[in-house]
Amino acid sequence: MIKSNHCKWLSVKAFLSLMFCFMCMIPASAQKKQFTLDELLGGGESYWKLTPENIYTTWWGNIALRTTPDGVYDLITGKEVLTVEQVNKFLNEKFAVSGHNFVFPTPDEPIVMLTKGQRRIMLDFYTGRTLLDVTLPANSVARDFNVKSKQTAYTIAGNLYVFTPNADTLVISRDGSTDGSDNIVYGQSVHRDEFGIHGGTFWSPDGKMLAYYRMDQSMVPSYPQVDIKSNGAEEGESRIAETYSCHYPMAGENSHVVKVGVFNTETKENIWLDLEGEKDDYHTNITWAPDGKSIYVFELNRDQNHMRLVEYDAEKGSKVRTVLEEKHEKYVEPMHPLYFLPWDSDKAIMQSQRDGYNHLYVLNLKTSELKQITKGKWVVQNFVGFNTVAQRVIFLSNESDPRKSCLYSMKITGGKRTPLGPEEGVCYQTQLSNSGVSVISAYTAPDVPRSINLLSTTTGKGTNILTAEDKWETMGYSIPQFKSGSIKAADYVTDLYYRMVLPADFDEKKKYPTIVYVYGGPHAHLVDARWHWSSRGWETYMAQKGYIVFILDGRGSEWRGRDFEQATFRQLGTVECQDQRQGVEYLLSLPYVDKDRIGVHGWSFGGFMTTNLMLTYPDIFKVGVAGGPVIDWNYYEVMYGERYMDTPQTNPEGYKNSNLRLRAGNLKGRLQLIIGYNDPVCVPQHTLSFIRSCIDAGTQCDYFLYPGGEHNMRGKDAVHLHERITRYFEDYLK
Amino acid sequence: MIKSNHCKWLSVKAFLSLMFCFMCMIPASAQKKQFTLDELLGGGESYWKLTPENIYTTWWGNIALRTTPDGVYDLITGKEVLTVEQVNKFLNEKFAVSGHNFVFPTPDEPIVMLTKGQRRIMLDFYTGRTLLDVTLPANSVARDFNVKSKQTAYTIAGNLYVFTPNADTLVISRDGSTDGSDNIVYGQSVHRDEFGIHGGTFWSPDGKMLAYYRMDQSMVPSYPQVDIKSNGAEEGESRIAETYSCHYPMAGENSHVVKVGVFNTETKENIWLDLEGEKDDYHTNITWAPDGKSIYVFELNRDQNHMRLVEYDAEKGSKVRTVLEEKHEKYVEPMHPLYFLPWDSDKAIMQSQRDGYNHLYVLNLKTSELKQITKGKWVVQNFVGFNTVAQRVIFLSNESDPRKSCLYSMKITGGKRTPLGPEEGVCYQTQLSNSGVSVISAYTAPDVPRSINLLSTTTGKGTNILTAEDKWETMGYSIPQFKSGSIKAADYVTDLYYRMVLPADFDEKKKYPTIVYVYGGPHAHLVDARWHWSSRGWETYMAQKGYIVFILDGRGSEWRGRDFEQATFRQLGTVECQDQRQGVEYLLSLPYVDKDRIGVHGWSFGGFMTTNLMLTYPDIFKVGVAGGPVIDWNYYEVMYGERYMDTPQTNPEGYKNSNLRLRAGNLKGRLQLIIGYNDPVCVPQHTLSFIRSCIDAGTQCDYFLYPGGEHNMRGKDAVHLHERITRYFEDYLK
Repeated sequence: MIKSNHCKWLSVKAFLSLMFCFMCMIPASAQKKQFTLDELLGGGESYWKLTPENIYTTWWGNIALRTTPDGVYDLITGKEVLTVEQVNKFLNEKFAVSGHNFVFPTPDEPIVMLTKGQRRIMLDFYTGRTLLDVTLPANSVARDFNVKSKQTAYTIAGNLYVFTPNADTLVISRDGSTDGSDNIVYGQSVHRDEFGIHGGTFWSPDGKMLAYYRMDQSMVPSYPQVDIKSNGAEEGESRIAETYSCHYPMAGENSHVVKVGVFNTETKENIWLDLEGEKDDYHTNITWAPDGKSIYVFELNRDQNHMRLVEYDAEKGSKVRTVLEEKHEKYVEPMHPLYFLPWDSDKAIMQSQRDGYNHLYVLNLKTSELKQITKGKWVVQNFVGFNTVAQRVIFLSNESDPRKSCLYSMKITGGKRTPLGPEEGVCYQTQLSNSGVSVISAYTAPDVPRSINLLSTTTGKGTNILTAEDKWETMGYSIPQFKSGSIKAADYVTDLYYRMVLPADFDEKKKYPTIVYVYGGPHAHLVDARWHWSSRGWETYMAQKGYIVFILDGRGSEWRGRDFEQATFRQLGTVECQDQRQGVEYLLSLPYVDKDRIGVHGWSFGGFMTTNLMLTYPDIFKVGVAGGPVIDWNYYEVMYGERYMDTPQTNPEGYKNSNLRLRAGNLKGRLQLIIGYNDPVCVPQHTLSFIRSCIDAGTQCDYFLYPGGEHNMRGKDAVHLHERITRYFEDYLK
Repeated sequence: MIKSNHCKWLSVKAFLSLMFCFMCMIPASAQKKQFTLDELLGGGESYWKLTPENIYTTWWGNIALRTTPDGVYDLITGKEVLTVEQVNKFLNEKFAVSGHNFVFPTPDEPIVMLTKGQRRIMLDFYTGRTLLDVTLPANSVARDFNVKSKQTAYTIAGNLYVFTPNADTLVISRDGSTDGSDNIVYGQSVHRDEFGIHGGTFWSPDGKMLAYYRMDQSMVPSYPQVDIKSNGAEEGESRIAETYSCHYPMAGENSHVVKVGVFNTETKENIWLDLEGEKDDYHTNITWAPDGKSIYVFELNRDQNHMRLVEYDAEKGSKVRTVLEEKHEKYVEPMHPLYFLPWDSDKAIMQSQRDGYNHLYVLNLKTSELKQITKGKWVVQNFVGFNTVAQRVIFLSNESDPRKSCLYSMKITGGKRTPLGPEEGVCYQTQLSNSGVSVISAYTAPDVPRSINLLSTTTGKGTNILTAEDKWETMGYSIPQFKSGSIKAADYVTDLYYRMVLPADFDEKKKYPTIVYVYGGPHAHLVDARWHWSSRGWETYMAQKGYIVFILDGRGSEWRGRDFEQATFRQLGTVECQDQRQGVEYLLSLPYVDKDRIGVHGWSFGGFMTTNLMLTYPDIFKVGVAGGPVIDWNYYEVMYGERYMDTPQTNPEGYKNSNLRLRAGNLKGRLQLIIGYNDPVCVPQHTLSFIRSCIDAGTQCDYFLYPGGEHNMRGKDAVHLHERITRYFEDYLK
């Protein structure tokens, strides 16, 4: 897996490591350091001292820049481009605090953009002239700035506004009035952020027209989330806990209704797109045509098995034509907007897994002609952009190995793919120059903490900017062993990849307690070719405490193609558990795995899996920690839930079989459920109803919650959480 | 402690025990049976087979009756009085189901009253004539029947109604309209059931006038209690969890406002008592004068240190006079209504602890003269009634031992007290005949499971009706040792009583893990001279598992007098913890107590104490289970909270010192907090805020909750809970 160009780096690493040992005068064989959780987890105070070295970069048009706290410098020559000091001298106030925050929005002009709190400044850093100085209302959210028109769309309490420099603020909600509320929400993300949606406003290319969502969720009940006011009550307020609104559409129940409006900031006219279909259809991936005359919407029926790409007239709102349709008996899931070819505004890059794998297509918007330009039993993971000079597309794919994510460029006509950088590991960050001729790309590989290159997107050649050392080694820590491999799925055909963490002093003659860490759901995977096979800090911590940790991506997980993911359709948890069972079979074949001490842990879908595995194989799994779990898909949201499970009305059998409440009586081992008390994703009703079922069935589960915590714990809470998880395995599995 | 008349019983017990062993052919020395939790706890399915034998009795005027499922029988002669069969023959339907439900409301008439669901029937069982057959609305609550007028007061959705046979239903709320609601509540208990209040309607002696409470709680916020709909959603309803209203006034915040109305069911006129004082005063222990012309109200200021007994004109509502006032620098707490002397309607029995102990007084309502008739360093625990023939009062007191509760009668003029039955143990049930000349009383003592006597209230002489055998022994169970004794409080002066449970096979050369079970709050005590020193089933279970259980009633607990209780004023938890610490000192003096394995458990105030002890003495207590605890008195209700702690505004220091959140960082041992998820008394905010504090302080507590459970778990939930508590000690203390 590790290619030759990596050997060089290895020797550098070995050298550095040697140097370090030498300097500290610690012989390599001496007692190594032990990690604390605080050092291993992102929320820990000493985490950063062990993270690999990094540098920060950006582009000003086609000039690569290195950003630092003091200012920005030419990445190649090191020459100063702009300093914080210079900016503040121009502004005559201490506004800029770090060069890391400098943004260069226009390729050919010496303009820097600075944002701090509610205030945004655009500065000509040749002349020192302030081009814009805007302060938005403090309570505004979903701010969306357009660099061309210098207008900002934002929302307050469900209402949408547009701020135009040197003009009145425009109110958009309901043609100028403010009927926005908790129930009627303008200009924010809709459909609970599914289908790749993460915003609710869409500027036209010239920044004069604003397309936006309007969501009516008055028919969707609120989950009663409780604020316990742990920081005390406001002045004059009761200190009693109170609920706050959290609309939550449950599978098969009423869903919200979304419309798309277009506001012309010059004429102040507001129109609605004349959307076809049912009221609870999904309207996704809104894309403006380059000329600003059309708007494209990927529309999906509530059953999620019929997608229509529809063109609308941006002035009138009327439908122009249905460009394309896509159907599948299980589901289709539009996740990406159109990317218009910079040199041909009739055509755009579209992504689809219609041939079984997510690939790139060139779509002719006029003729509906669809030409596939990548193909194979691998997936395009991300479309990065265009090299406009050589007319190439740049994208990430796992062509070389399902666990990898490497950067390639290719002619727009398809054909040979040019690797941009070594075809190894996972390219986790890409920054394209304005023309797309160059890219700054960062990758990591199982034994590469971080490597950053500046490359030509035509040839793939370029310069290494940073190769980070392995601080764990140079600082003398005792490091576990990280491995990866594959086994067969429960269908005895499909390859599944695992990773495994073994104690540093691993002795295969001993018997080790072993923990399966699991996710198992769609749109995620846990085994990839990052540093240490992307093992998490907690796994190192557990290996240090003498555990083996095993992670397997079963069917249903991402980047293995449509059928691999859709194997779980209408029966979430069934195939996934069978595949994890295969993982355990493999573990049991290893002489050093203690079959009487197998535990399981996972969060979210992984919490569902953990609970499911504890109840399905009570004689295998002795201890489990299930975080933020789904327990009953009846309590999960419409969008995600119905995609994979259809509705409780149309798939009663599937909902029943996956309902873990009905199996609470199977619990034999130790199971701790942990949630964020204010989880808006897997609402507390899941675990609370499971607890009720355990009590009724006469079984004992354990429980913990993080007041104020949401679906995932952050900061210090995350450290506390992992101490807690560790303690549970130490109490009952060791 | 065990008096001579008990010896007889002991020999009967020994005989029965021998017989049982003989019959089963199990030698006494053979392996004894072990208890299951199900057998030991009230919620268990096999609980009843081990409870002592019982008989059920009632009075028809002055005729003592034994009730059975078939009917009722003369207790002395055994002669049949009335059978279920006979009743149903009269009614020509199968209405009556058990003689246990027969009620004889009038002393001189052959009338039986039967209630089933919403329906109430009065039957002349000589003639077979039905005197009343009423069916109330199914959703009505707080039903209050008056036997004289045969009218029933009841409430529906906050509104008060009176049902009069053969007439229209009368609406009382707001002079005939229905403004009752969740905010404005008529005819129900007020002031959160403090001050001895447990109902909201009060019939005049002739049953023609109805006094009632009206409570406005619109200014009191609701605690957001969440119903997770564990039994599923109603037809057409969302399955999402939802909140329900639970007004909860927190200490120092807005409290509800109570008025007292009087409705004349003949004139249909409605008046309000012209209450003096502040709007959030307490209006307690409403008592009608025997002639129905006056109403007496014990009124208390919000600060609870000034009580006024006020007479009102029942027709006009105007104040007649203030009969009496009582003040104390800490608090006064009126808990009992007036009991008018049947032979002198100017005088009534009143209770007060104004001399330091709760005693009986004869109050002249006309002259305000107050004559104390019992006195001493002991308390009257309950006023039972009058012997109207001999003009004697009948009451329970702990005169003979602070742990006992024995029945006495005494002339109304005071003086010598005549014990009614043996002066031992706890008299837990009394039924007076109509004239009060005879009483059926039931008691229990440390080695008496149950004894029932029919006695003269003049002489104390009579007949033993039942002496129950010790089924634990006769059924061959292995029984722990139950002990009681006393130690000195932390003031080194006051005697405190403890009880202790030791394993059946106790060996004082061994070291035992020891659990302190604690309550510690006012209005309760745990050590009294009931069977097994009133040890709870769970304690036997733990002793069986090899633990010692220790229970101490410290200062602040009940029936030891005013100063003993008020030692904790404005500093709840401080003195109580010091006294429990004394208990541990005593334990540590015992060679068989393992000092490294001391645990603590308690519920409610005892949950507060458990958490407090874990945080105050982290090196003593290794494991604790705190149920339904108060954590921060800021989150407790106005009535109880302000009585003992004043308000957060007037006693900031006391609130701070008793706030366990501020000491979450002290946690060293294992502490599990357990609550009813829907606890309306110690709302979940207590434990949730404590958990937040532990997380912030970097300490780990454990947590569990019973969805749908309130302040105490019942039925099967109670068994599950105690399995859980046991498991925790087994995991970490053993």
